[in-house]
Amino acid sequence: MFDYKAAFKSSVEQVRSEGRYRVFADLKRVRGQFPQAVRRRVDGSEQDVVIWCSNDYLGMGQHPVVLDAMHEEIDAVGAGAGGTRNISGTTRSAVDLEAELASWHQKEAALLFTSGYVGNEATLSTLQKILPGLIIFSDALNHASMIEGIRHGGGPRHVFRHNDLEHLESLLAAAPADAPKLIAFESVYSMDGDIADLAGTIALAEKYGAMTYLDEVHAVGLYGETGAGVAERDGVLDRIDIIECTLGKAVGVMGGYIAGDAVIIDAVRSWASGFIFTTSLPPALTAGALASVRHLKVHPELRAQHQERAATLKARFAAAGIPVMESESHIVPVHVGDPVHCKMISDMLLDEYGVYVQPINYPTVPKGTERLRFTPSPNHTDAMMDHLVQAMDKLFAHCNVARRPVAA
Amino acid sequence: MFDYKAAFKSSVEQVRSEGRYRVFADLKRVRGQFPQAVRRRVDGSEQDVVIWCSNDYLGMGQHPVVLDAMHEEIDAVGAGAGGTRNISGTTRSAVDLEAELASWHQKEAALLFTSGYVGNEATLSTLQKILPGLIIFSDALNHASMIEGIRHGGGPRHVFRHNDLEHLESLLAAAPADAPKLIAFESVYSMDGDIADLAGTIALAEKYGAMTYLDEVHAVGLYGETGAGVAERDGVLDRIDIIECTLGKAVGVMGGYIAGDAVIIDAVRSWASGFIFTTSLPPALTAGALASVRHLKVHPELRAQHQERAATLKARFAAAGIPVMESESHIVPVHVGDPVHCKMISDMLLDEYGVYVQPINYPTVPKGTERLRFTPSPNHTDAMMDHLVQAMDKLFAHCNVARRPVAA
Ligand SMILES: Cc1ncc(COP(=O)(O)O)c(C=O)c1O
Ligand SMILES: Cc1ncc(COP(=O)(O)O)c(C=O)c1O
Repeated sequence: MFDYKAAFKSSVEQVRSEGRYRVFADLKRVRGQFPQAVRRRVDGSEQDVVIWCSNDYLGMGQHPVVLDAMHEEIDAVGAGAGGTRNISGTTRSAVDLEAELASWHQKEAALLFTSGYVGNEATLSTLQKILPGLIIFSDALNHASMIEGIRHGGGPRHVFRHNDLEHLESLLAAAPADAPKLIAFESVYSMDGDIADLAGTIALAEKYGAMTYLDEVHAVGLYGETGAGVAERDGVLDRIDIIECTLGKAVGVMGGYIAGDAVIIDAVRSWASGFIFTTSLPPALTAGALASVRHLKVHPELRAQHQERAATLKARFAAAGIPVMESESHIVPVHVGDPVHCKMISDMLLDEYGVYVQPINYPTVPKGTERLRFTPSPNHTDAMMDHLVQAMDKLFAHCNVARRPVAA
Repeated sequence: MFDYKAAFKSSVEQVRSEGRYRVFADLKRVRGQFPQAVRRRVDGSEQDVVIWCSNDYLGMGQHPVVLDAMHEEIDAVGAGAGGTRNISGTTRSAVDLEAELASWHQKEAALLFTSGYVGNEATLSTLQKILPGLIIFSDALNHASMIEGIRHGGGPRHVFRHNDLEHLESLLAAAPADAPKLIAFESVYSMDGDIADLAGTIALAEKYGAMTYLDEVHAVGLYGETGAGVAERDGVLDRIDIIECTLGKAVGVMGGYIAGDAVIIDAVRSWASGFIFTTSLPPALTAGALASVRHLKVHPELRAQHQERAATLKARFAAAGIPVMESESHIVPVHVGDPVHCKMISDMLLDEYGVYVQPINYPTVPKGTERLRFTPSPNHTDAMMDHLVQAMDKLFAHCNVARRPVAA
């Protein structure tokens, strides 16, 4: 008989031997004090830390408008939704949130999912059912959730080199002119911080009769006059067919959604297993997200502060000779280039300096490009930056890591 | 060029023509008054309704211990988790909840997912990566999330006739003796309300060297001395390898999890894309679920009340000649056998009687077995039942639907 225990053990051993066994940092955020948190060590003892790698980019996860809306909704309607969307689980704040999200992205309709991951997986796999023969053109650095969705659909797919429009065009040109096509890409790539050429990609889509599917998970709330994302900033909202976002990062809560033409939303709503057969988001989350989005729309100064903090941290790292990678966005990656060093620096930052930043190793990024990824928010003060830069300076000296700036 | 609009339109038309186009009931539950809620009609007007089809089986989604825990957690730590489990998103109440869930099911470890759907999809697809060549034996009526997970893994699979252990044994016997095998099944099947033969299935698994994977989504909180599910009730917890549950039904919140040996959990944790690459559950949800589970463990009287309500409704339907289907559980399905009648009765119940029960049509159940599915909770009063049975009596006369009891 098969030895299951041995097989599970060896699969975990493989992860360990590749240096990517993960021990999760056990954190308790402290309301009103973000980015500060209390870490619980394995032995049960506690330590104050500053979180430098959260995707709660603007601290909205602690904002009173969000927390108040959640409290009110719990008092008004309770905890869970109690069912799938079709079977008693459509709560009023979810309906209102979908309307708000559609209008934010200047689309006819929006559809909520459990998460951004589920939104990508369910939508991309379902589009292949709705449009038989659909050929998907996917950026090489697309997120795991997009890759899984594309794979699960089972149809033809071509991967184009990251942000390489020439390569994309050569693939589009080689496909049958009358076949349905979809270009799937992201605006802000979260590990490098670079931003796709939206207008250029759209021009190709229009030339070759392809639809566009844009993941703005790391951009929504952060770019554009009202925070609707890079498509708003670049003035191309009406030329993107499907926009996919999360409510778990800049919005500060949890959940995901797509926005697009009503008929597209209606088709996905009717066919996507990952949408249909699951309990809906709790009302407190949809109410909290609704309050957050309404706040984000009318507070562009948050976005300005966010960009200022990121630019300042990049400049300070560069001035200290820390190898900050080129990034056009709010993401501040620092090159280490080795998984063991990367983990060691991060451990020392945490244990000796109370600086919490997660090492980013393979398979999240290619081998040899291991890095630390910092995400300064408007709540990260100058004093916190002083402390961080000094700590990094000492550790990079200690670990003898290359100092010159390295391009992504 | 391809005509996308026409293709999306025709896919929606197909859904309409099959009679399964869905218009979601827009509901606002009223805290403390479950199962009562306020329905918002398409024209914006409102109507008081009684929900008869919620999966918040015990009303825990309105229980003060759950709501208080959520309020406290929001006040203490905020809204969203702000990251994936590995990147700043492991919150203390999630760690504590995993420990509580493991002990509830008498297992070494547990692992949280965004939902029960994601738990099934991620675990079943990942097990096929961890155990190459794994042959999965899947009950014919397994939930969509299990089917998708099994399909996404891409390995060999055999579907056995629903709850048919002879068929299962013949398939097991035909497979290579030394191949890794997994039997995937549910305890309570939610559309028929029948319960699997756990001990019989386990005996086969042991005889043929297979692992067991049991979905207790519709049983957790509801069966067994402490509510750990049918495996607890039947005294076989230690002989099930992986138990999968939701926090969105009887627990009243949202989320999913698996429980099992530490090494199994560690392997899934390390390999499952749907676990790794997504924002963690908000602390308010994990804290609410933790409070709910702790309450459920020590309140067996809730489970007794629940069973009493279900038995009473079945008896009252039967006495009135309403064709209630055979069900061993808390689920009370009433046979209609035709999608148009089913939808019509449900619409009239809602519009004329304020009784909200969703019609269950194909593809959720096989054609010809369309039904109404009632889920009475301890909060459904005798008066509500009087009203319901009278309404059903009139409508079944009106629609001239067969009256004799029909077996599932
Ligand atoms: C580009 C991208 N898309 C989608 C997701 C998934 O979103 P969520 O965390 O809401 O599941 C993530 C990260 O989690 C992401 O980085
Ligand atoms: C048997 C079964 N498993 C899993 C799920 C999914 O659980 P969740 O609603 O938490 O996604 C459901 C229903 O939603 C179900 O009925």
